[in-house]
Amino acid sequence: MQRLQKIQGPDPSALLRAKARHDGLCKPPGSLGVLEDLAARLEAITGSPTPVFQKAVLVFAADNGVFAEGVSQNPQETTWKVCQNILKGRSGLGQMAAFYGVDVFLEDVGVLRDVPGHTRYKVCHGTGNIRRERALSRNEAFRCLLAGAARAREAITCGYNFLGAGEMGVGNTTTSAAVICAMTGASPEEATGYGSGLTLSGYRRKVQVVREALQRHQPFEDALEVLSCLGGADLCAMVGVYLECALHQIPFVLDGIISFAALLCAKALAPEVTAYAIASHQSAEAGARCAQKALGITPFLELSMRLGEGSGCPMAMNVAECALFTLAHMASFEEVQLTRESYIDLRRNEE
Amino acid sequence: MQRLQKIQGPDPSALLRAKARHDGLCKPPGSLGVLEDLAARLEAITGSPTPVFQKAVLVFAADNGVFAEGVSQNPQETTWKVCQNILKGRSGLGQMAAFYGVDVFLEDVGVLRDVPGHTRYKVCHGTGNIRRERALSRNEAFRCLLAGAARAREAITCGYNFLGAGEMGVGNTTTSAAVICAMTGASPEEATGYGSGLTLSGYRRKVQVVREALQRHQPFEDALEVLSCLGGADLCAMVGVYLECALHQIPFVLDGIISFAALLCAKALAPEVTAYAIASHQSAEAGARCAQKALGITPFLELSMRLGEGSGCPMAMNVAECALFTLAHMASFEEVQLTRESYIDLRRNEE
Repeated sequence: MQRLQKIQGPDPSALLRAKARHDGLCKPPGSLGVLEDLAARLEAITGSPTPVFQKAVLVFAADNGVFAEGVSQNPQETTWKVCQNILKGRSGLGQMAAFYGVDVFLEDVGVLRDVPGHTRYKVCHGTGNIRRERALSRNEAFRCLLAGAARAREAITCGYNFLGAGEMGVGNTTTSAAVICAMTGASPEEATGYGSGLTLSGYRRKVQVVREALQRHQPFEDALEVLSCLGGADLCAMVGVYLECALHQIPFVLDGIISFAALLCAKALAPEVTAYAIASHQSAEAGARCAQKALGITPFLELSMRLGEGSGCPMAMNVAECALFTLAHMASFEEVQLTRESYIDLRRNEE
Repeated sequence: MQRLQKIQGPDPSALLRAKARHDGLCKPPGSLGVLEDLAARLEAITGSPTPVFQKAVLVFAADNGVFAEGVSQNPQETTWKVCQNILKGRSGLGQMAAFYGVDVFLEDVGVLRDVPGHTRYKVCHGTGNIRRERALSRNEAFRCLLAGAARAREAITCGYNFLGAGEMGVGNTTTSAAVICAMTGASPEEATGYGSGLTLSGYRRKVQVVREALQRHQPFEDALEVLSCLGGADLCAMVGVYLECALHQIPFVLDGIISFAALLCAKALAPEVTAYAIASHQSAEAGARCAQKALGITPFLELSMRLGEGSGCPMAMNVAECALFTLAHMASFEEVQLTRESYIDLRRNEE
């Protein structure tokens, strides 16, 4: 855990230099909005206005014992079957990743039935039912986290320098909702959503399961305890990815509710980790908003997506690359023979 | 004008077929949200789940007589200078278009100082000050509209089949705000924004100018009268682009407030035109929201952009292409050996 103390944010002066350069480009100051923010942050993180990214989404698959409570309408074997589909590249994530030139790697960290050839990082075969018991022992939760970190390190060693983390696991919007409640103080009603699809009575059952899981396990001494009591193996691995990225000062992209639950835990372990987090889409899942509010992160794609898998990552990576490209190559005021002084800076009005 | 009567929406049964196919793909039904809507609409418009798009943004430049009222902080020559920058490909639009493989063409329809080599579609040298007089005669407004339509037809003849329209003209957020008020009944306060940058006193002056322009010219007998009294030459040309696209059953992408003002007028002339309109980003300019509400169109990129030029178009075109690619190549439930019946369709819950 002492590696966590090495996590630092990017150089603040690099961020200011990037913003100053953007303000010299021929446009109303700040008029590229989120694109300017993204470009400035990525310039500061990478130390270059024109970084070349090798992009990958690391998908962690695991089953969740809370499935026994009827929190999902899908058969539990959906986890294993969708893993096969992800490996064939035929999932929603796979197609979006192919479109945007992003590689996808899947690791079975906790699926009930082994995913052949993808068990190098496997820690368990499913987790405990959080309504009745811990999801994972503290040691298992830590090993899942280390598995995600090790997988990210492997990717970074292979040259990937812009990562996303995804997940596949029936029941994981339930574990994530519970983790978000524990980490933010949100109520089960606020943090629980319809997942991949539930009837109203199914939804009410899911809220009740989240409530009872929290009542059983709280209080929590630290984020690892939250992950151990409530978290899925996939969620733990994603925490590890984010921490490893931050340690290597590499940006990573968020996706939906599970990624936000993971980032809340990662931030509790190393506050500077959020400096490397890039938002993507506004998940349709309720808990994502609770976590975003707590983290101060605002997604910029309003696609009403709720597919999971890490499917929000490839497009957001592409938007970030577009932001960098645009702000690297636009003409300056000087080149256009205009002066910045003729523009009122609306960002100052706001202040 | 009898060509307008030929504008029809795409085949409704094609839309239903596309949606039915998407619902057979291995994902919670509707879980790709806006991407499913985009893909279904574009499949219905083009008649193919895998259309190949040649993409262009047509930018129309014009000066606005209302500049004399102090509605913009920029020198009026900014219009001409930024045109030069767009032609060099160094504008924000140009860089985003380059990144996404979109071609950009600029036409001077009404700039005070001619843009050399780009005056084939020119109608006027600036417009009247709408606070005191008509912007354009009815005949001039119609010629501007025809200029946009002719430029779009030229692009379509050259093989472009996915278009956006952009604009460059100091003062055009004022003319657009006035047009939006006239077309939707919104108040000048609701429809007027800060444009490329104004002080609070400048903003109040702009609202007052919009109010007085409306008082001088209303009531309006039709949309062409609105365009003639209040509209810029750029705005009129954009109306022509949208109508020509719809006539050829070609999709087009919207941008910010000026594009929404243009679509309101185009819809008044030919209601089915909106069936070919694809939203892009949520403009930071207030009037855009008034128009979106009236049109029932919701943007899906939340980038806080307010650059103009058509700069929202290239990214939205790319998102649309990603949507088509993803929904064309994902595996079906059958291929993954899952059944759709295990998923609750949340879209039905909503109904």
